[in-house]
Amino acid sequence: MRGNRVVVVGAGFSGLAAALALAGAGCAVHLLEARDRVGGRTLSRPLPDGGWLDLGAQWIGPTQDRMYALVAAHGLATFPSPARGAPTLRWAGQRLAEAPAPVAAVLDTLDGLAARLDPAAPWRAAEAAEWDRTTLGGWLAATAPDPVTARYAGRLLAGGLLAASPDEVSLLQMLFYLCSGGGTGILLGMAGGAQQDRIVGGPAALAERLAAALPAGCLRLGAPVERIAQDDGGVRVHAGGAAYRADAVVVAVAPALAGRIRYDPPLPALRDGLTQRMPMGAAIKVHALYPEPFWRADGRSGVATADDGPVTETVDNSLPGSPRGVLTAFSYGAEARELRRMAPDARRAALLEALVALVGPAAARPDDLVEYDWSADPWTRGCFCGMLPPGSWRDYGPELRRPVGGVHWAGTETASRWSGYLEGAVAAGERAAAEVLNDLR
Amino acid sequence: MRGNRVVVVGAGFSGLAAALALAGAGCAVHLLEARDRVGGRTLSRPLPDGGWLDLGAQWIGPTQDRMYALVAAHGLATFPSPARGAPTLRWAGQRLAEAPAPVAAVLDTLDGLAARLDPAAPWRAAEAAEWDRTTLGGWLAATAPDPVTARYAGRLLAGGLLAASPDEVSLLQMLFYLCSGGGTGILLGMAGGAQQDRIVGGPAALAERLAAALPAGCLRLGAPVERIAQDDGGVRVHAGGAAYRADAVVVAVAPALAGRIRYDPPLPALRDGLTQRMPMGAAIKVHALYPEPFWRADGRSGVATADDGPVTETVDNSLPGSPRGVLTAFSYGAEARELRRMAPDARRAALLEALVALVGPAAARPDDLVEYDWSADPWTRGCFCGMLPPGSWRDYGPELRRPVGGVHWAGTETASRWSGYLEGAVAAGERAAAEVLNDLR
Repeated sequence: MRGNRVVVVGAGFSGLAAALALAGAGCAVHLLEARDRVGGRTLSRPLPDGGWLDLGAQWIGPTQDRMYALVAAHGLATFPSPARGAPTLRWAGQRLAEAPAPVAAVLDTLDGLAARLDPAAPWRAAEAAEWDRTTLGGWLAATAPDPVTARYAGRLLAGGLLAASPDEVSLLQMLFYLCSGGGTGILLGMAGGAQQDRIVGGPAALAERLAAALPAGCLRLGAPVERIAQDDGGVRVHAGGAAYRADAVVVAVAPALAGRIRYDPPLPALRDGLTQRMPMGAAIKVHALYPEPFWRADGRSGVATADDGPVTETVDNSLPGSPRGVLTAFSYGAEARELRRMAPDARRAALLEALVALVGPAAARPDDLVEYDWSADPWTRGCFCGMLPPGSWRDYGPELRRPVGGVHWAGTETASRWSGYLEGAVAAGERAAAEVLNDLR
Repeated sequence: MRGNRVVVVGAGFSGLAAALALAGAGCAVHLLEARDRVGGRTLSRPLPDGGWLDLGAQWIGPTQDRMYALVAAHGLATFPSPARGAPTLRWAGQRLAEAPAPVAAVLDTLDGLAARLDPAAPWRAAEAAEWDRTTLGGWLAATAPDPVTARYAGRLLAGGLLAASPDEVSLLQMLFYLCSGGGTGILLGMAGGAQQDRIVGGPAALAERLAAALPAGCLRLGAPVERIAQDDGGVRVHAGGAAYRADAVVVAVAPALAGRIRYDPPLPALRDGLTQRMPMGAAIKVHALYPEPFWRADGRSGVATADDGPVTETVDNSLPGSPRGVLTAFSYGAEARELRRMAPDARRAALLEALVALVGPAAARPDDLVEYDWSADPWTRGCFCGMLPPGSWRDYGPELRRPVGGVHWAGTETASRWSGYLEGAVAAGERAAAEVLNDLR
């Protein structure tokens, strides 16, 4: 592969994985990143008295083998998410010890449907048309035995997994995601599930180590890619005032952002159409900092879920060995968008009121509230990931990974397994790198 | 208004109307257009032996008062769409004289629901949440008395009006569109309806006359806008290597394309989110040219609709005074995307087979088949217009017309009345111009 030049667009986990694989195979790689940092949808904020907050993606769990291998290979360690104490569940204004049985029945039903999918081609399922014309919200309204179950399950699934509202997610999109991550048990779980472990220093620390492992001169920060031109002589990538000639390109940003690059010749209609209809989820993740994790004194785990209000769930994000309590709250979809419309004071008041309802009155006076707005970040524009709206999977799903000449597509949205997760991002980067190597061979 | 400078982005009907209104009020206007022509989603192709084809938008009808006024003011004329003879209706493999009664019942029901909406704020309807979580396809499957009625009505409405598939359109989006255009009777009708009249030379000829009425030096072609920067000193628009200082900007392109411009500071999260979730429809419009309009000899009008197959409808697009027969076929949504995936020969064969089924064996051998692919055009990327996917109207609808500092939004998608039509484009351009004038006053 010596002498082959490849440009990788975007230094999130997917782009980093692609660049490492391509450089490892002997290609001359340029990894171009719009921001002044690597890591994509991961970001650590150091705390003044030690420790850090994970402002973006933060967890890994069993079967995410690539991530555990990277952590180990780059000299980092994981630690388990705190899991002592009882969870809190708000249900129709009451506090319950666990979700009522109909919730489990709904999850079981969905897991059963998801098991019929091929996550590499969900549009091929026999019921794909029907599932894609049905929104999760509509399906729950028709299927759940009561409105609270429908609301709770919708928030848990569309919100907790896709940072969306149940009304904007098709049943097919939801089932694809469940299938891709191994089912609701794994996806929603702490120990044994997708939220089992955190990385010391956060995934952003791992992204920095991956970047440090790249050949010298490979990474260029502050270089938003504006244009990708292809002709018989290869590819030319224009970024930050410079042009890079290459034999192939891996675009490792979400489809919504990939569509904002100018392509010459223009992208085929169907590929462009995909970029028009894969909006990013809308999550607000807020870290509330307290002198100590006061909820533990009550025997509570800090893990809380609610059937209504602006906050769908909280977790205990305190660090081992630190006296500080960190309670992290998530707001999703319509609720997150409603919070966005509020003036800062009203927003803070709404968030704290929700935290008090979930973990008690001591939540009302945090030392600090820390948030990073991924939807406002022009180089991310939402999280956790992009998703296809109802009625779109069958026509546009096949375009997700289809190369356009020398342009290949990575990013967690293109993964079959663990789509939407760091693991999927890495797998997608490696898959795109393998495609390129195969083409250049 | 003398001394105020305004940039208008996009010289379709909306941008032309905005530029004319602003220039008329005394502003110094720059109208920047990416292409080498004006007219946006209208385009005429001259025929070698006289006459022309309308490759994009082509009709106007009663209550579209702005369009009739512009036609008259700029010295053009209209002529009625041919309407002699009987329509053809393919229904479950048979030819019917008219749609079975259940179709009319479905349309009546939808018109009744649409009448409850305020087209300026459809998200405020009492039933908005339920309507937006229900796809038109899902609603028809549950409401229509049989699958053929559901399929036929879905193609007629989602296809014929939005160039989409019923499964990707929410009931709320459909009802908004019906309400905006005055109901199914007007929207689907020829004489008395939205397809009543054509413009001599096509709407593209009118666009050229509008452009000619602009002050000298106002219009710049071949200038795709790359970046819009705002600060306390005003707005700077970067296009085609030049920068234009202005006091305000009107962006008169569809939201999907507006999102591809780079903004400094970046757009607010909700406005950017809108641009991520307003995909353009997917229509294929093919003109089949014949020595004469042979269907008239059989007493047929050339107006045909079909419940299945790649072509949903045809019309007689022959010009008065010309011996030539022009039959124009429309394919929408999933069918259009399927045609796109075919090799050219297979695609031609599929189209001609559908035409034969609709208007008879003489359709099999046209002198020519003429198509323009709006989805492949990088400065349009689909037609007829952009639409919000299920579950998105309530959160993002309010962003459609909300200015961002000195940036105002036009384009037919932002219209309340006749959204998606030339009339809506003009109204939106005039509304945005009025906003700017009000701000600068």
